[in-house]
Amino acid sequence: MGLKYAVIGTGAIGGFYGGKLAKAGNEVHFLFRSDFEQVKKNGLQINSVDGDFLLNPVHAYHSTTDMPACDVILVGLKTTANHQLASLLRPILHENSLVVLIQNGLGVEEKLAAELPHTNIAGGLAFICAQKNSPGVISHLDLGRINLGLYRGNKEQLEQVCTDFCKAGVDAHVAESLGYARWHKLVWNVPFNGMCVVLNSNTDRLLENESIRELSHEMMQEVVEAAQKCGYNLDNDLPHKMINMTMKMEPYAPSMKLDFDNKRTLEVEAIYSAPVKAAQKAGYKMKKVAMLEQQLKFINARLS
Amino acid sequence: MGLKYAVIGTGAIGGFYGGKLAKAGNEVHFLFRSDFEQVKKNGLQINSVDGDFLLNPVHAYHSTTDMPACDVILVGLKTTANHQLASLLRPILHENSLVVLIQNGLGVEEKLAAELPHTNIAGGLAFICAQKNSPGVISHLDLGRINLGLYRGNKEQLEQVCTDFCKAGVDAHVAESLGYARWHKLVWNVPFNGMCVVLNSNTDRLLENESIRELSHEMMQEVVEAAQKCGYNLDNDLPHKMINMTMKMEPYAPSMKLDFDNKRTLEVEAIYSAPVKAAQKAGYKMKKVAMLEQQLKFINARLS
Repeated sequence: MGLKYAVIGTGAIGGFYGGKLAKAGNEVHFLFRSDFEQVKKNGLQINSVDGDFLLNPVHAYHSTTDMPACDVILVGLKTTANHQLASLLRPILHENSLVVLIQNGLGVEEKLAAELPHTNIAGGLAFICAQKNSPGVISHLDLGRINLGLYRGNKEQLEQVCTDFCKAGVDAHVAESLGYARWHKLVWNVPFNGMCVVLNSNTDRLLENESIRELSHEMMQEVVEAAQKCGYNLDNDLPHKMINMTMKMEPYAPSMKLDFDNKRTLEVEAIYSAPVKAAQKAGYKMKKVAMLEQQLKFINARLS
Repeated sequence: MGLKYAVIGTGAIGGFYGGKLAKAGNEVHFLFRSDFEQVKKNGLQINSVDGDFLLNPVHAYHSTTDMPACDVILVGLKTTANHQLASLLRPILHENSLVVLIQNGLGVEEKLAAELPHTNIAGGLAFICAQKNSPGVISHLDLGRINLGLYRGNKEQLEQVCTDFCKAGVDAHVAESLGYARWHKLVWNVPFNGMCVVLNSNTDRLLENESIRELSHEMMQEVVEAAQKCGYNLDNDLPHKMINMTMKMEPYAPSMKLDFDNKRTLEVEAIYSAPVKAAQKAGYKMKKVAMLEQQLKFINARLS
């Protein structure tokens, strides 16, 4: 018998990965907020570069108290909603449940682990361009890879999730080290998420400017050095490679820029404050990254 | 016989200081661009917290080729126009003329001195809230002090200028060291000019935010340390004092914010690039100031 899945936070990320699993025949229970009525009525539409599909009917819920206990819970919420996460999860956990936090930044597993001391926890790093265009309609524009990393629990369970993803046509991998995977993704996220907000721009306009290419490179170097100080041996070539890759990408607005444009609270804590603090604890100051954090805190305070 | 003055760049700064000298009976010749016709017809109106006055008629010119040679030339242009300055000045210089650059930033005297190797040059640091509201109408809102510092020439000549200012009711002083005076003013200008642009805000909204108070303080510390490395012994207490003073000020939009709002090129070179380079030459990296410079270069490139 297969694993029973739940998706908490069915936005672009949760909807895409949960949708792929459901389409492949897995049992998936989805939590919706504002999209609930629409999805109940018309299903969940995934418009994907890999082929469009409609899930209908959907196991859709408006509250986790109505949902069955599940083996694997994929969390697609923004980290800014994580203060509610433990209480959202409790009704659907059994003693062997595995919670997979498909979220950006650092420190999210630690916080949940303290609140749910007996629950298995993993992280998922999604490399995907996807967005929700309207209620119940998700667009998958590019990429799709997900790197899974265990925080607490047994690896076989996570590997089974990875196998389910692969069978569903998702490019999924289990990383040796969750910390490594998280820091690796931060190398890209740190300069581009925040600078697209502060300079109100997207990646291609930023990188056509020499000063910003230089600044992005410097911030990436700070992240690499911080990761190394924290024990994750990221490659010193990474900044150079990621800048070149980004310059070849289509013009892209990172998730924080979409949050900013939609006046949602920015994920400053997970993407900036937690890494800055972790580096500092390891004896290293990311000065330019800390300055971007300070500017983003100002912008966040003015949003709310 | 008194000194014969010229004002090149009759905006808020040139108009105010030149206007005060003219009102006190000094001979002052003003160069205007777009305001020329208006001033010829209706004079130059100064609305000042120290008392309003109208200069009419005004020795107004549309080109320096029509102006007489003058003893003292007050330059109120933005530093972004300095590539034209030497050729603007040549028609009105005599062998003992003194050019006073009432401009922000660093390095402006050096550049002019190289272009006009036989001309006496001084700098002026204006501590004033003033703006031009409409053609020929200047508002002086607060403060007014000017610190003069000699770059090349004889000090008696500069002291005579200072005396003329004082007689005209301007709080003028001759600084012992122009470099000290310029770095001192940079301590305030560096954080607030740029951050008001990048974060699209004014001083009071910036400083009510804890992160930005901290960041402003850090940038001020970088400027103080850079000045010290360059041989100007600024007080380590200055950042603390200036932040407190600014928090007590009325909400204020620095000149760079006004330039930004009016889509004028920002004075990034004089206020940021020149100090960053000077510090680097002295063996010190202003990291956060350099990051602000990088962000402002991006904004400048998008303006033009």
